[in-house]
Amino acid sequence: MRKISILGATGSIGSQALSIVDAYPNKFSISALSAHSNAEELFSLVRKYRPSAAALTLGEVPIPKDLSFCSWYFGETALEKIARDIPSDDVLVSVVGMSALKAVINAIDTGKRVLLANKETIVAGGSVIMPKCDLFSENANLIPIDSEHSAIHQCLLGAKDNAFNSLILTASGGPFRNYSIKEMQNVRPEDALKHPIWDMGKKITIDSASMFNKALEIIEAKWLFAAKPSQIDVLVHPESIVHSMVEYKDYAVVAQLGVPDMRTSIMYAMFYPVRMGAVSERLNLSDIHTLHFEKPNTMCFPSISLAYEALRLGGSAPCALNAANEVAVQAFLDGKIGFLNMADTVKYLLSKDLPKAENADEIIYADSWARFKATEYIHSIN
Amino acid sequence: MRKISILGATGSIGSQALSIVDAYPNKFSISALSAHSNAEELFSLVRKYRPSAAALTLGEVPIPKDLSFCSWYFGETALEKIARDIPSDDVLVSVVGMSALKAVINAIDTGKRVLLANKETIVAGGSVIMPKCDLFSENANLIPIDSEHSAIHQCLLGAKDNAFNSLILTASGGPFRNYSIKEMQNVRPEDALKHPIWDMGKKITIDSASMFNKALEIIEAKWLFAAKPSQIDVLVHPESIVHSMVEYKDYAVVAQLGVPDMRTSIMYAMFYPVRMGAVSERLNLSDIHTLHFEKPNTMCFPSISLAYEALRLGGSAPCALNAANEVAVQAFLDGKIGFLNMADTVKYLLSKDLPKAENADEIIYADSWARFKATEYIHSIN
Repeated sequence: MRKISILGATGSIGSQALSIVDAYPNKFSISALSAHSNAEELFSLVRKYRPSAAALTLGEVPIPKDLSFCSWYFGETALEKIARDIPSDDVLVSVVGMSALKAVINAIDTGKRVLLANKETIVAGGSVIMPKCDLFSENANLIPIDSEHSAIHQCLLGAKDNAFNSLILTASGGPFRNYSIKEMQNVRPEDALKHPIWDMGKKITIDSASMFNKALEIIEAKWLFAAKPSQIDVLVHPESIVHSMVEYKDYAVVAQLGVPDMRTSIMYAMFYPVRMGAVSERLNLSDIHTLHFEKPNTMCFPSISLAYEALRLGGSAPCALNAANEVAVQAFLDGKIGFLNMADTVKYLLSKDLPKAENADEIIYADSWARFKATEYIHSIN
Repeated sequence: MRKISILGATGSIGSQALSIVDAYPNKFSISALSAHSNAEELFSLVRKYRPSAAALTLGEVPIPKDLSFCSWYFGETALEKIARDIPSDDVLVSVVGMSALKAVINAIDTGKRVLLANKETIVAGGSVIMPKCDLFSENANLIPIDSEHSAIHQCLLGAKDNAFNSLILTASGGPFRNYSIKEMQNVRPEDALKHPIWDMGKKITIDSASMFNKALEIIEAKWLFAAKPSQIDVLVHPESIVHSMVEYKDYAVVAQLGVPDMRTSIMYAMFYPVRMGAVSERLNLSDIHTLHFEKPNTMCFPSISLAYEALRLGGSAPCALNAANEVAVQAFLDGKIGFLNMADTVKYLLSKDLPKAENADEIIYADSWARFKATEYIHSIN
């Protein structure tokens, strides 16, 4: 039985991870659970799974008496403490944002395995995290959960070092795949929040519509798989059945396919290197019948080019891209800026002299700095 | 530098293997070359590659004086002698038919690695060959070259034992994919010999049109990958870009894709476990744009069901299926029987009391017996 901590237990990925724990009750015991603000749901999870620690990252609330069996942590530093101090084999990190950076580093540094569903930490902190990580051996200490990176991980199993020629990230293309630039300019938040395939939070839904999620994934892929930027391609695939691909040096392409269901990637990470019986539906390609592939329209989706630009700049540029995008998404959702202004905000940031990002504290500073500058820029264009 | 023998050097696979030797001149030296009847071409290959042995399996011919540096073998037993006696790291077996069975067994028994492009030996002799074989370790001694089985091999790299749920063989569906039973009955040899994708010999082209090639591949897959018949599926995929797939226990599907070019599978086998730089074209999925998948029409293609029936019967039934099909293909090409009579011939054989097939000699006997019975049957329906 493996001990697992689930940071972000009340979110979409966290809940699905718990559903896998439920499906395999003899395989896991829960070491720790966290939520940001949803205290009631966290209480009920703590009652059910009886972890030795629990955290609410928004801040302190009164804890029901029957839940005093577990150690409670509150506030911003809760996750990094839990990741360091609470014994666990695995730490599943499904909280959003940079708040997970120190938690990821602490978990790795204390010999735990991180199952990572948080993009920001690798995008901004890849240079700090990756030298500590092994993704493929029996003792792997970092397994990606993002469906694209999980797919690439699966396609690279058994590959010799550096045997790949390129990594091909597939993208649904989002709801505006066939829009003109003019139509893109007029996209409103309510248009963007109808995403066809996955059930996701608002931030991720907007990122999917702007393809900034793919921009983040390009940067993630660079760090996770030690790829050069020129080795990473994006291919639009509206059906979202092929979750990503690896092209090897001999031009053989290996792809991972499945119904769009995050539980497959979560389960893959939780049980790696063993494959367990499915909790999701079986792929039936003859029913689906047709799969489409096309190049992304980089005119309408400047996010893709901005990712390569951030990688070219290096240092804190990927961190700035991520931070500026987060600020811009919120401004777009609040009706303050237009859809394409999100990319403008990121572009503006990448044109600045950027701070260093050589350790966790510098990365966190660069993140705050970029948020501040992005907010300033958004004010200036209003 | 690895020493390689190429049995069937003047055929399609053999020539392509030699083109890879040419592309990587410092990687291979040629130990032996064989041809069936094309003496002139074999002479010129022997002049070029200077092997230590050469063979013409049709029978003895006068050897030019300048080629006396190499040991010559003639007739039916040439290949089994070369496979046993000529030192070599690899023996690429691209001759067609059962004549390769003893060569494959001898190569394996003398510690050589077999790169196998011959379907019949595994179909008929799987039970004898496979207990001696390792397909995946660094010391693998059998690597399939058939594009479907090469694809499955690539999709299984790094997999734990028995982690797959099913093997999905893709099939182009051949030129009669959308025909009715009535149209199938009226197919003439010249209709069948126009295959859209691969440039192949007549026998393989007819097998592709009748889907008996897929029937043979189902049986091969059972032996090569220790799959149960219920774990093997066939999916029609007219573009022939996805070369086959593996469904894992967690319903993750891993597929191998590429432009239809046998050199990729040949090179994969020749360099396994290393991937070398491509000699074929790069796959461009956005140019191809659309991939289709559908169930095979088992009414019009009884070959598929006959493969499962042969596996159910076991013993020499797969050998009988292969032998009867070979006889029937020739009779069809000679205008003696109709297109669907090929399947009738196989079905007739599978209804008989079949001989044992527990060693190489029994398999060779069962093969001759089935050819005799198939010929008898074809006479009876004329």
